[in-house]
Amino acid sequence: MQKIRYGMVGGGQGALIGGLHRKAAALEGQFDFVAGALSSNPEKSVASGKELGLPNDRNYPDWQSMLVAELALPLERRIQAVVIVTPNHLHYPVAKAFAAAGIHIICDKPLCHTLEQAQDLIRTTRASGVIFAVTHNYTGYPMVRHARDMVRAGTLGQIRKVIVEYHQGWLATALEGTGHKQADWRVDPARSGLVGAMGDIGSHAENLIHTITGLELSHLCADLTAFGTGRMLDDDSSILLRFEGGAKGVLLASQIAIGHENDLRIRVFGDKASLTWHQENPNELIFMPLEGPKQTFSKGSSGLSAAALKASRLPPGHPEAFLEAFANLYVGIAEAIWAKQDGRTLTPLEGDFPTLQDGARGMHFLEKTVESAGSEVKWLEAKYQPI
Amino acid sequence: MQKIRYGMVGGGQGALIGGLHRKAAALEGQFDFVAGALSSNPEKSVASGKELGLPNDRNYPDWQSMLVAELALPLERRIQAVVIVTPNHLHYPVAKAFAAAGIHIICDKPLCHTLEQAQDLIRTTRASGVIFAVTHNYTGYPMVRHARDMVRAGTLGQIRKVIVEYHQGWLATALEGTGHKQADWRVDPARSGLVGAMGDIGSHAENLIHTITGLELSHLCADLTAFGTGRMLDDDSSILLRFEGGAKGVLLASQIAIGHENDLRIRVFGDKASLTWHQENPNELIFMPLEGPKQTFSKGSSGLSAAALKASRLPPGHPEAFLEAFANLYVGIAEAIWAKQDGRTLTPLEGDFPTLQDGARGMHFLEKTVESAGSEVKWLEAKYQPI
Amino acid sequence: MQKIRYGMVGGGQGALIGGLHRKAAALEGQFDFVAGALSSNPEKSVASGKELGLPNDRNYPDWQSMLVAELALPLERRIQAVVIVTPNHLHYPVAKAFAAAGIHIICDKPLCHTLEQAQDLIRTTRASGVIFAVTHNYTGYPMVRHARDMVRAGTLGQIRKVIVEYHQGWLATALEGTGHKQADWRVDPARSGLVGAMGDIGSHAENLIHTITGLELSHLCADLTAFGTGRMLDDDSSILLRFEGGAKGVLLASQIAIGHENDLRIRVFGDKASLTWHQENPNELIFMPLEGPKQTFSKGSSGLSAAALKASRLPPGHPEAFLEAFANLYVGIAEAIWAKQDGRTLTPLEGDFPTLQDGARGMHFLEKTVESAGSEVKWLEAKYQPI
Amino acid sequence: MQKIRYGMVGGGQGALIGGLHRKAAALEGQFDFVAGALSSNPEKSVASGKELGLPNDRNYPDWQSMLVAELALPLERRIQAVVIVTPNHLHYPVAKAFAAAGIHIICDKPLCHTLEQAQDLIRTTRASGVIFAVTHNYTGYPMVRHARDMVRAGTLGQIRKVIVEYHQGWLATALEGTGHKQADWRVDPARSGLVGAMGDIGSHAENLIHTITGLELSHLCADLTAFGTGRMLDDDSSILLRFEGGAKGVLLASQIAIGHENDLRIRVFGDKASLTWHQENPNELIFMPLEGPKQTFSKGSSGLSAAALKASRLPPGHPEAFLEAFANLYVGIAEAIWAKQDGRTLTPLEGDFPTLQDGARGMHFLEKTVESAGSEVKWLEAKYQPI
Repeated sequence: MQKIRYGMVGGGQGALIGGLHRKAAALEGQFDFVAGALSSNPEKSVASGKELGLPNDRNYPDWQSMLVAELALPLERRIQAVVIVTPNHLHYPVAKAFAAAGIHIICDKPLCHTLEQAQDLIRTTRASGVIFAVTHNYTGYPMVRHARDMVRAGTLGQIRKVIVEYHQGWLATALEGTGHKQADWRVDPARSGLVGAMGDIGSHAENLIHTITGLELSHLCADLTAFGTGRMLDDDSSILLRFEGGAKGVLLASQIAIGHENDLRIRVFGDKASLTWHQENPNELIFMPLEGPKQTFSKGSSGLSAAALKASRLPPGHPEAFLEAFANLYVGIAEAIWAKQDGRTLTPLEGDFPTLQDGARGMHFLEKTVESAGSEVKWLEAKYQPI
Repeated sequence: MQKIRYGMVGGGQGALIGGLHRKAAALEGQFDFVAGALSSNPEKSVASGKELGLPNDRNYPDWQSMLVAELALPLERRIQAVVIVTPNHLHYPVAKAFAAAGIHIICDKPLCHTLEQAQDLIRTTRASGVIFAVTHNYTGYPMVRHARDMVRAGTLGQIRKVIVEYHQGWLATALEGTGHKQADWRVDPARSGLVGAMGDIGSHAENLIHTITGLELSHLCADLTAFGTGRMLDDDSSILLRFEGGAKGVLLASQIAIGHENDLRIRVFGDKASLTWHQENPNELIFMPLEGPKQTFSKGSSGLSAAALKASRLPPGHPEAFLEAFANLYVGIAEAIWAKQDGRTLTPLEGDFPTLQDGARGMHFLEKTVESAGSEVKWLEAKYQPI
Repeated sequence: MQKIRYGMVGGGQGALIGGLHRKAAALEGQFDFVAGALSSNPEKSVASGKELGLPNDRNYPDWQSMLVAELALPLERRIQAVVIVTPNHLHYPVAKAFAAAGIHIICDKPLCHTLEQAQDLIRTTRASGVIFAVTHNYTGYPMVRHARDMVRAGTLGQIRKVIVEYHQGWLATALEGTGHKQADWRVDPARSGLVGAMGDIGSHAENLIHTITGLELSHLCADLTAFGTGRMLDDDSSILLRFEGGAKGVLLASQIAIGHENDLRIRVFGDKASLTWHQENPNELIFMPLEGPKQTFSKGSSGLSAAALKASRLPPGHPEAFLEAFANLYVGIAEAIWAKQDGRTLTPLEGDFPTLQDGARGMHFLEKTVESAGSEVKWLEAKYQPI
Repeated sequence: MQKIRYGMVGGGQGALIGGLHRKAAALEGQFDFVAGALSSNPEKSVASGKELGLPNDRNYPDWQSMLVAELALPLERRIQAVVIVTPNHLHYPVAKAFAAAGIHIICDKPLCHTLEQAQDLIRTTRASGVIFAVTHNYTGYPMVRHARDMVRAGTLGQIRKVIVEYHQGWLATALEGTGHKQADWRVDPARSGLVGAMGDIGSHAENLIHTITGLELSHLCADLTAFGTGRMLDDDSSILLRFEGGAKGVLLASQIAIGHENDLRIRVFGDKASLTWHQENPNELIFMPLEGPKQTFSKGSSGLSAAALKASRLPPGHPEAFLEAFANLYVGIAEAIWAKQDGRTLTPLEGDFPTLQDGARGMHFLEKTVESAGSEVKWLEAKYQPI
């Protein structure tokens, strides 16, 4: 099978997430990084591409030139996919342009700034038929997949409550005035969007709930806070959730939780069993049945679901981590692109990655969260209506 | 120093908490158990007292006879304190009668059924001058006291957010139909009061927040759920909190969290540091400063506050637990009773136990929680006004 | 049932372990502390007894007077048992005298200084028919009892290997010399015996192996070290073990392991399953079967052995700890004393405590350890021959 | 900088470790996999290479043809390095041949079968001037490097004791009769060498001690056991260690420890502080100073040594794991190869990987272990004399 040629928008010098995408894409040897417009600053863009070994003729000063030039290439040389790792405000225009042009999209989260943009992307994507992935990378962990498969198999019974928390401490002080590139754009409404911490990490938390439980929100009640002096966007949030069918939930996301590094956790309580998963110790899944001792499932061990086993490369006890989970998304994306090329249907274990629909659900959630935070209504209706 | 003579109301055969109080009171040899009315059923009451070796003439069929008979005894034989460990609905009448009669009160939580009752107890107690303790026993753990002392000393800076959780799973199924005495009364509004899980465990959670942080609530927003079929009281709750001065909080309490045994945790995020404490691993306190590694303080070790060290009997690494924490409350109560007797003021390290004022604050919180749960108002005003 | 009257030798002002014994004995209300010779210094002895509320006529200046005076009392007033909590060198003479006089013995560990002494105590005890308990208190933990019962029930299959470790750090510096009473006598061969850390904590470790697995040693190979400057007794040890029947083992005990507080752990590997227990987190027992996830059994939960459940007073999740485990030994001792008094046989769940035979096995082990440490023989024969 | 062209010997279909090396080499984009002789079976070798996309003319049936053919290529196309991932018995002949021919060597562990072979490789390597790395991959973890740097900086003071354990359970049953390729050769003396578990995992444990502490062995005392029925090589070992300068140690390695997956741990006790690291939770390092609370250093956080920070790609809390640690060795190897090519000296942070000298020390250790296990001498002299 030929490697998939991809270009990247964003992710140049000083960026974190771009390098991660490149490594994740490379891990299984399914992708080739062949083109890029790596910064909104044309000089920096070209310098970054040079550093990364991009050929001169495909190292573009901006994404618009990249789109034009790539479309001018014959199909067998042209990029098949674009990875979008810019600050949030550029996700939408870039994704729309490339998707319309028939290029598959791999877009970082949160998807865009508004549900309306998300719906526009859905329509564009439907028209052109491209694959569109949103990299909620935590869903790529083997034990998240096993959690999902246990819930879906009914092992937990009827889900009653879900608690998801995402705590970080890196914005506890005013990092944004200190030349910290990522802090700068994340607290800036023009680039980050309606939300701060909620967009950056809360969107992952929401996606994790939906991925594992399949529950659809009915109402929510949000309290957003900006503890940092002068901050215009939330750096802390606490949200009560109600789901279709009667389950309840809580979502906490904060970037002022000193000492918490990347502390994403989820607990699911069913009427037959509970489970707990923690991102900083990702290779374990705690399962608690009504009777009998607490059980600790470990990555790669027998007894896991087929999807969980597929997502693991190493024997139990040989930890796999963030990058490998990220790479699992790229494995699914590659499968989807190849299947599309070959005109064949995906098998049940193929194509396991968050989609544009997940991204749109996330935008709806973020909009409703902001609306609730500013409202006197206790329970804001928040059902997502897919188009 | 002479031992303090106490009687007990409730806590007979089949009860859990009464035995605990007796052991906690006995641990340091400061109390003598000399009288009892151990059940609302007179025969069972007497049978229980016999089993526990109470002398016949002070083994009473009901609390009313006990009160009358004890008051007829000369002061030097009469009980000095009464321990109230009945179902919740009897706390108020028993406490009121004994307090009015000049007997010190040690009352299990939650204090009573309404704030009005609590205020009446405050007035009664003021009039008679008795000591009144409410056994929020988790505040007796050495590391809770160290947490409190760190916060009070400003080590965490300005408190921004508090998350307290109390998860149990024992009411995940319909235990109340199966002859389980404690399940039966806890789900019965007549005996349990306005609230179920919130009264049983949520009240501990609220008290823990206040004890450690000293924060006073300004508003709250509650979602209470009864997941158990046919249940009239909450078995699950999620509450958003706002405190005077701008701090935010979350309180989660559930008794349907399968596999969670007595999973009480608190996290406090300040602008200088954070801390975490977990009841099931009570001898550790995690402290996370802005800079440098996470620190794990352990019970009994050098560097702890004087109150934390006083609350520990054994060297570090020799675990102390629930019962010892409970006994620490009794130590403080004994100190207060002796000081009162001797007409002297308590030293700063003496008399460390939750008071009637804490109990009243808890009743206010529970009332506001129920009011909020039934209301469309998002942020219910919930400031406690001590009388 | 009448309480058991006991006297104490040692355990006066400044001692740690005496107070623990008194609390442990009192916890279930089965024992009465009525007499004492609490120090080898007569003045201190009497002062200590006064502080603890002993009546003057039974507050003795030395253990010899106590023995004489108590024997002069009528049987129904006389102490029934003596608790020996002196430095090690006095265990033997005190135990021998009281046992010969028909007083039951509760002796701290290690039992004495030599196997010969231990055997003499066995003979004395047999002659007088008294109960003799050696307080290897860690065997009183519920989860240690469950571990033992699992192994005995064959749940682990044939035992292949046992690893026991006991790490403390309190002697990492030259604490002896600084007025630290316990450090002083523990490093002094005259009072501590042949061994230092091995006697203090290694003897617990050996007892834990035997209690849980029932394995009998065949050979050992020891390396003892005194890291502390000028120390004559070991403060660190590493010992290879071979058991009858082919199992292997490792015993590590150290008091120079900085940061380790009371870090006693045991792992047992069978051919069907393994288990792990850790004293600092005593309410959990990790069980690892050949197939399926790791299981965490918790104290007080359904599914535990009857002996483990009996050893727990509180529901799961309400931690019980060192003192409660210690008290469990006293519960068993009380049962044995009462049964002996009544001339009846113990039921299978009664009388669960380490015996003089366990103490003697420990002395044999310590003697062989020292012999091995000084020997060029790799595998020293070390089978214990009970008399 | 041009990528380094490498070939691989071993690591074809059904192998685990070969794929790992390829991914580790690829992670930072510094290596190109251009040639292979992937199995000792020529057909399987070629089929494996085809599957992995090797060009036909460099997909060799055996390593001898590969050597000949590659040497016939011009220098700028020829492989610069060979990765040896065969069963142990082939390490030596392959490494010797390629090293003699001027090809850099990246050899899996244990290095070979005897110290004599190791010394021959040293001589060969010296003659030809090639780089020779032995992939003790656990030394690539950031927190292992920080541990090493703390010890070397004297933060722990004088090292007194080291305890290293490596427990696995996968050979608890007779896996070797069931068609399990890796079990088959690991228990076969002809292919595995003198040792079983000791070679497979004990050699990592020994290397970890030396890497972190720099201590040199003086004597050892080993007990090796084959618990598996009919097994000729050890599947369990317990070894007492004595180091030059007076430190003591214990090394435990077992593959019959049911439920233990890849449970490598090290504890180091100095006279100023202790540390603990655990491979299954690799991003934490526990540091315990004489005074003050236990500290948990986490990967990627400020305050780590430069080498530890360099070994991390992601922010704290974003776990990195086995593969990333492995890749860190390849990073160091690439640096060494490039520096050699350019005739320049490595900077202090470059070239951080285990060398042939480490491999030879390991062979010496394994030989001495086997000698000790079969000997009546308690303390076998075991000082490694580098040639």
